[in-house]
Amino acid sequence: MTPARRKTTRTGTRTRTLRVELGERSYPIHIGVDTLERAGRAISRCAPSSRAVVVTVPAVGRRYGARLERGLRGAGYRVRRITVPDGDASKSIRQLHGLWDQMIDFGADRNTPVIALGGGMVGDLAGFAAATYLRGVPFIQVPTTILAMADASIGGKVAINVPQGKNLVGAFYQPRMVWMDIATLHSLPKRQRAAGLAEVVKHGAIWDEAYFAGLERNTRGLLELDPGVLIPALSRSCEIKAQVVSEDETERGLRKLLNFGHTLAHAVETLGKYRGWVHGEAVSIGMRFAAERSEALGLAPAGTAVRIASLCEGLGLPTEMPNHPRKAYLQALRVDKKMSDSRIDFVALTGIGAARTVPLSPQEILRAPAKATRKKTGSKGTQRVVR
Amino acid sequence: MTPARRKTTRTGTRTRTLRVELGERSYPIHIGVDTLERAGRAISRCAPSSRAVVVTVPAVGRRYGARLERGLRGAGYRVRRITVPDGDASKSIRQLHGLWDQMIDFGADRNTPVIALGGGMVGDLAGFAAATYLRGVPFIQVPTTILAMADASIGGKVAINVPQGKNLVGAFYQPRMVWMDIATLHSLPKRQRAAGLAEVVKHGAIWDEAYFAGLERNTRGLLELDPGVLIPALSRSCEIKAQVVSEDETERGLRKLLNFGHTLAHAVETLGKYRGWVHGEAVSIGMRFAAERSEALGLAPAGTAVRIASLCEGLGLPTEMPNHPRKAYLQALRVDKKMSDSRIDFVALTGIGAARTVPLSPQEILRAPAKATRKKTGSKGTQRVVR
Repeated sequence: MTPARRKTTRTGTRTRTLRVELGERSYPIHIGVDTLERAGRAISRCAPSSRAVVVTVPAVGRRYGARLERGLRGAGYRVRRITVPDGDASKSIRQLHGLWDQMIDFGADRNTPVIALGGGMVGDLAGFAAATYLRGVPFIQVPTTILAMADASIGGKVAINVPQGKNLVGAFYQPRMVWMDIATLHSLPKRQRAAGLAEVVKHGAIWDEAYFAGLERNTRGLLELDPGVLIPALSRSCEIKAQVVSEDETERGLRKLLNFGHTLAHAVETLGKYRGWVHGEAVSIGMRFAAERSEALGLAPAGTAVRIASLCEGLGLPTEMPNHPRKAYLQALRVDKKMSDSRIDFVALTGIGAARTVPLSPQEILRAPAKATRKKTGSKGTQRVVR
Repeated sequence: MTPARRKTTRTGTRTRTLRVELGERSYPIHIGVDTLERAGRAISRCAPSSRAVVVTVPAVGRRYGARLERGLRGAGYRVRRITVPDGDASKSIRQLHGLWDQMIDFGADRNTPVIALGGGMVGDLAGFAAATYLRGVPFIQVPTTILAMADASIGGKVAINVPQGKNLVGAFYQPRMVWMDIATLHSLPKRQRAAGLAEVVKHGAIWDEAYFAGLERNTRGLLELDPGVLIPALSRSCEIKAQVVSEDETERGLRKLLNFGHTLAHAVETLGKYRGWVHGEAVSIGMRFAAERSEALGLAPAGTAVRIASLCEGLGLPTEMPNHPRKAYLQALRVDKKMSDSRIDFVALTGIGAARTVPLSPQEILRAPAKATRKKTGSKGTQRVVR
């Protein structure tokens, strides 16, 4: 692990460059407005090749594919666009296999960059294809959702789903570059904007109370994509994520804090067969749940969960657990990928802006808050403090 | 890249320990006789967990599974054995998926080691499953063939095949430990012994003339598994491989030399639909071919190819190219994974014990030796020297 170093460059007020420090695998994050066509030249510097593969979904490809590809062709690439159906169901072995086949057909070699143009699903699928094709080819993230910009595109976690659960198969595979053009967010449906902001809330909740308070004051500006609000917020979220990832690339410790809200969220998504709530909505539900459990465990002061819930609801996010049988939740938690010998490293808040992990069994996680309040901690004496 | 450091420990004459130096991902290689039951304790030190998965093939599982698993249980593991059919056809998406499913069913978590007990196929398949399950779990190699001991189990290359070619999908994923018990080789059919020795010949051919000469003098001892001949040979092969891998983990340069004989070998295997020649036999054919091309290109002195062919034939290995149409060979070479923008880094000898890569098109690789001799080099002015 190397200590996190962040370098933020401002060229004008509308473009920022950050850096994720991971030794040989370090990479830049560019945040700007109307910069899509310039991505090609930047990509050609970090992944020179005669060919480039763009992976996207239909709507995003129609809107932004041509602009990105014009830049790529201008930088000397032959481009193959691969379009996969929208939705988390595309994070499948079948689609992964389809990507491999098309890359072979295109003559993609070890230097051919795979460029993910889209949201988190596209990044996860294309990233896992890039990680495994010929044992790894250059990977570029061009996220077009708030969720992907603030969270999914940074950190190198790529994965697909299997019927037993989400992200159970994947890799840690860092991109060569992340290129964010916030102009692409204007076509994002309101529901997806709010969902993406759930991860922004998460960064404030686990790491930075002042940032969290700023979000509380600016919910409207965030939802309306006001660059003066959104660019600083995305930058801060990327900084937090980059710092955490730099210190713990493969999620042995610190990085687990980024799973705040995600343990229950994955269960909510699994039980909805990946179709009920979108990821950010499930995370919002999971964060409120986790904050309430943190209070019940005596870790967070009273009022923590209310602030989490209020901010999420102010952004139009759901916070109520869907009504599935407790047994179904237990089963879903048991295959959660973070389970380590029957206990899950559950991320609890110790207040707004600070978090720690607590090893809990699925039963302890789901214990009714009233009961848990009586027995102050879920696993006395075995709590593991990560931060 | 870190400079290679090798540490060889001798405890008695029959056990050796080497180390592959890769920073945080360094790992030991143990070579011994009748040591299978002791592996469990060693594994528990480098991959502590309550569960362990053993992946093997039927014949190997029957002969050696119980012994390995007794040691694992003695070290506190609950063990799940997963048996896949013998043969390279098991390096498939289907078998990979089956492994993931069984691991989920077993409750394997992020700490659960996956132990490959068998030859190169088992190591490649189990290693890729370990690399991708939950984004990576500990991986242990317990090779039971000469091929896997001398070559496949070291270096972290794992992969599966797709219909378009061999090893087109995979990862660089280092094991935590490699445990070799040469007593397991006695059940190895003569054909497999010889095939495995092809990789031993390769190490001498590209790296160490004295070692190559020693092999020439000891073909009988090698084939008869005389520990006095075999243990030093395996150790030297592992040292060479470990040194090359330490200096170039992800095959950007030096490591490509280990592909000596493999460009044509993969084509021979693809054209035989992975069923005609076994891998080492195809490598033997490929090494003779590559040595002849090296002479024809004016890179290796006359007589080089004859020494390669004689040693291979002395070990009972084939050296004649199977009779497929030239067009079929061209097509097979074109999907070879080492192709970089239409050229292949072809590994040529510059003599016995020294090699370099030359970027050649598939046409140049297959050019009839007579023609090539007239035009001294295949790609004048563009030759890339890696070593």
